[in-house]
Amino acid sequence: MQPAHHKAATVRLMGFDVDGVMTDGSLYFTPAGDEIKVFSSLDGHGLKMLQEAGIAVAIITGRSSEMVSRRAENLGITLVHQGVHDKRAVMETLRSALGLNHHQLGYMGDDVVDLPVLRACGFLRNRRRRPRFRPPACRLLCQQGWRQRRGKRGL
Amino acid sequence: MQPAHHKAATVRLMGFDVDGVMTDGSLYFTPAGDEIKVFSSLDGHGLKMLQEAGIAVAIITGRSSEMVSRRAENLGITLVHQGVHDKRAVMETLRSALGLNHHQLGYMGDDVVDLPVLRACGFLRNRRRRPRFRPPACRLLCQQGWRQRRGKRGL
Amino acid sequence: MQPAHHKAATVRLMGFDVDGVMTDGSLYFTPAGDEIKVFSSLDGHGLKMLQEAGIAVAIITGRSSEMVSRRAENLGITLVHQGVHDKRAVMETLRSALGLNHHQLGYMGDDVVDLPVLRACGFLRNRRRRPRFRPPACRLLCQQGWRQRRGKRGL
Amino acid sequence: MQPAHHKAATVRLMGFDVDGVMTDGSLYFTPAGDEIKVFSSLDGHGLKMLQEAGIAVAIITGRSSEMVSRRAENLGITLVHQGVHDKRAVMETLRSALGLNHHQLGYMGDDVVDLPVLRACGFLRNRRRRPRFRPPACRLLCQQGWRQRRGKRGL
Repeated sequence: MQPAHHKAATVRLMGFDVDGVMTDGSLYFTPAGDEIKVFSSLDGHGLKMLQEAGIAVAIITGRSSEMVSRRAENLGITLVHQGVHDKRAVMETLRSALGLNHHQLGYMGDDVVDLPVLRACGFLRNRRRRPRFRPPACRLLCQQGWRQRRGKRGL
Repeated sequence: MQPAHHKAATVRLMGFDVDGVMTDGSLYFTPAGDEIKVFSSLDGHGLKMLQEAGIAVAIITGRSSEMVSRRAENLGITLVHQGVHDKRAVMETLRSALGLNHHQLGYMGDDVVDLPVLRACGFLRNRRRRPRFRPPACRLLCQQGWRQRRGKRGL
Repeated sequence: MQPAHHKAATVRLMGFDVDGVMTDGSLYFTPAGDEIKVFSSLDGHGLKMLQEAGIAVAIITGRSSEMVSRRAENLGITLVHQGVHDKRAVMETLRSALGLNHHQLGYMGDDVVDLPVLRACGFLRNRRRRPRFRPPACRLLCQQGWRQRRGKRGL
Repeated sequence: MQPAHHKAATVRLMGFDVDGVMTDGSLYFTPAGDEIKVFSSLDGHGLKMLQEAGIAVAIITGRSSEMVSRRAENLGITLVHQGVHDKRAVMETLRSALGLNHHQLGYMGDDVVDLPVLRACGFLRNRRRRPRFRPPACRLLCQQGWRQRRGKRGL
């Protein structure tokens, strides 16, 4: 097995979950609905740098929120898929639309429901306060807390 | 005394406190009242998995908030008891309604006022940044921070 | 010098700063003004227990916020002094109104401006992520993070 | 190379980034826009003390928010530059307006985009959960978390 940073060098499409990956997993419930998302300022430059380096960035999440659209717009991310039940299928669609092979996919997720897409992608990143699963076919990176990393330091 | 995970295997009704258990204990005070509750996205899947595994899930809390009802609805939890002064009595009512015995009860709380219900249940879970009490008749689990655990990893 | 817990046993009036002591020091700025205060649910029971044990509890803070009044009301605290420039003078007024001597005073603060009142009281508590001062005439306690402690575990 | 605290003693103009420096880097997205900024109460006294010590304090940030203006007003900071693309140019303008030389400048930033201004100033401070760059011509201080430091303990 080659080291993770070799593997990372081949990635051309990187998918990101939102809750727990672009946020710290906190869900703010207010009387007017689930209204606040807390992102990290450091992720912002990282995700822009990824795109400037020619790597497509996609947001693929099971929940749905206007704030995610706004953050994506901020960062120039156009591949935004919310309310998704089958993240692997979305990655597959994007992969073939972009003419990539499976070794060029990466996904960063943090929960049990992310296992199928994490297994399907050749490269994955997990959050430090990670769930207890560790798919054997995957590489697990990331030794830092969520505020300091993500996109930028992920690849 | 059998190990905690053996004990946990017998649980058929699991009660959860809200502040400090389903949240990190922060109480947000805004001009319009105590309006924001911050839950963890990881707990969500865990509480769903518990229910899919045939374990009844109840929310029993001393405070009262619309946000808790909304989070419960999100997670398909119908046993929601707020503004409760005697949590043990509520657990007892639920126990007999569900036809369970005392060894099939579990409760997760984090404060001194939870001691009676924690003592009455055969299994308990506490938060890592735990209060200084440790009821001798109970088992104390949980070595992780609140964001990564709860329902899912609790049982 | 007697151990801090001996000293603590003599306290009959305990004053608390707000920002950094009853909160984690975060100041939330929203468009409508400084509106959100984040308290800890664990402090609540502790401050009630202090009062039930016959110890007067006062809130003395340099800033001013409606949320502090509401939290105080929640906890049954009637001695609430906001927008205070000279905390030591307020403690002194309360001390003589309650007919106490100086050895029966305690104050919990977290910043440089709290030094005079901290020096004047025989017992003090500081937060763990503490400023770099350590008044020689005082005792410094508290090894825990703000969420798990305060009133309850302070005395 | 002289120790950082010797260097710090010469600083007469200290510039501060906002996100990640005066806040913990969290970006709160609400339906009404990016509305909440969370500052630290401990920074407040520190920034006032800096100014009382005759050191000019400037806020220079790439983003723009009404909350930053309000916090600056709170702290008596009049040199507030938001939406800035070239922070080094702003520092240079302030430097010549104040009649200072380059050795009297300091800047505290936390991201890759701060590198030019960090390199241009003789003294810099970074946040503990620091990005992975370390400009060789600069001094890197700060071993503490954001809540306990900044202005006050920075110099």
